[in-house]
Amino acid sequence: MQTLSEFDSHIALTPAGEGRYAADLDGGWSVGGGLNGGYLLALIGSGIRASLPGKPDPLAVSAYYLSAARPGPATVAVDVRRDGGRVATASADLVQGDQTRIAVLATYGDLDGLGDDVRTTAGELDLPPLEECPRGSAAPREVLDRAPIMRRFDMRFHPDDLGWVTGRPSGEGRMRAWFRLADGREPDPISLLMVLDALPPVTFNLGMPGWAPTLELSAHVRAKPAPGWLKVHHETRNLAGGMFEEDCEVWDSTGRLVAQSRQLAMQPRTPAG
Amino acid sequence: MQTLSEFDSHIALTPAGEGRYAADLDGGWSVGGGLNGGYLLALIGSGIRASLPGKPDPLAVSAYYLSAARPGPATVAVDVRRDGGRVATASADLVQGDQTRIAVLATYGDLDGLGDDVRTTAGELDLPPLEECPRGSAAPREVLDRAPIMRRFDMRFHPDDLGWVTGRPSGEGRMRAWFRLADGREPDPISLLMVLDALPPVTFNLGMPGWAPTLELSAHVRAKPAPGWLKVHHETRNLAGGMFEEDCEVWDSTGRLVAQSRQLAMQPRTPAG
Repeated sequence: MQTLSEFDSHIALTPAGEGRYAADLDGGWSVGGGLNGGYLLALIGSGIRASLPGKPDPLAVSAYYLSAARPGPATVAVDVRRDGGRVATASADLVQGDQTRIAVLATYGDLDGLGDDVRTTAGELDLPPLEECPRGSAAPREVLDRAPIMRRFDMRFHPDDLGWVTGRPSGEGRMRAWFRLADGREPDPISLLMVLDALPPVTFNLGMPGWAPTLELSAHVRAKPAPGWLKVHHETRNLAGGMFEEDCEVWDSTGRLVAQSRQLAMQPRTPAG
Repeated sequence: MQTLSEFDSHIALTPAGEGRYAADLDGGWSVGGGLNGGYLLALIGSGIRASLPGKPDPLAVSAYYLSAARPGPATVAVDVRRDGGRVATASADLVQGDQTRIAVLATYGDLDGLGDDVRTTAGELDLPPLEECPRGSAAPREVLDRAPIMRRFDMRFHPDDLGWVTGRPSGEGRMRAWFRLADGREPDPISLLMVLDALPPVTFNLGMPGWAPTLELSAHVRAKPAPGWLKVHHETRNLAGGMFEEDCEVWDSTGRLVAQSRQLAMQPRTPAG
């Protein structure tokens, strides 16, 4: 019997009929007071995948975060809205008790069935070699205790983006790191939904160390990732009116842009410490 | 009695009870075979607004395009998913007969109630003066006949982005223009939902003149626009696997970034003409 990776066991679902799936949200994905939105998105994305035979891959997924999820039992309820031709669209809710935590719309397809034509002008993220990038696990103990999620990952940060750890934020709305799961589980389209929201928010580097609640996140998975390290780039260009957008790009070990996302988040209320 | 602008009369809704609104989709917003997605998004956005008293402004709106809408009767069906605190979230469908045309998730709030803090690093779109930018209405008659929507707008294109009109596409995945409604109706948060998807697709400048069906579009309205001309910037960075993402930014007459969007669209099948 094959042993599931930590990630796969934590997003495992039990079919409960009529598009419903039972889940057990794992507290190891906590950050601050809540569970990480990317972890929950991958879990929901896994439920949608199970509901759309022949269309295994998320192409576009939009998540609206309504209330904070807690570790423990939850239900993913999937409603297939249209399934015909090359893509299918579904809505899905993550529910705990009588509370909807996250409402999702998503379009799935088969990434293997898409063309090979690539005309990317986006420049591949340039990171120093792994050995020159500090490990996330080297963060101070109080950071790791507040964010157990950091233990799920092997993250190696761009040296210029780590000043927030020691109270010297860079002042630039950017966060860049090498990324892989701590147990070596290789990336796939479902895990990319988690990777897109795994790094600390860019506001840490703008002198706002508090929690930045996501209102909405839309993800595009553009290709199946090759095995190996991913490179992840987060950036904000417009912090205004108490909100900021955060764009993320994920590049695989062959240098291909495999996922993109944009989220709208609330500016942390905590002033710089 | 005040006369409605063309835009306002074309997105007008009649309440039909239980979150439902009757609409009459106007053929003047056709482009190629279908109705423009931005027009439909503004119409749906107007129905959501009517369902959320005290939260008049779209902050984030995600639309999934399931089937092509046709001119004529339609229904906007809104379901308020959460309303409490500073923001509210709703789902909404645009329906014709038994077909859902567009499925939407959206979070609304009050843009006047947000802070004035602006820390934008995004560079304001640089366009030549209006008089140096060719009018969209100067396009060849066959372009205007295929796209009656062009007559709704006063668009003045960046001279470098208009080569596609004469069969000499720039080769760059970009489209930039001054923008206002033809009848002078001033912009507001609802009309911005239309503006974000009004220009010809960037693929026209990549030598792909066909229709580029949107799979998903997510819009963020970041501030109320000032009266006057808008500046609109579309760009793609990653055309791959038969799909491309298209980012849009809208700047108002005071130089403020008032709206952002990203969409995932299918690459046109038509080869370069």
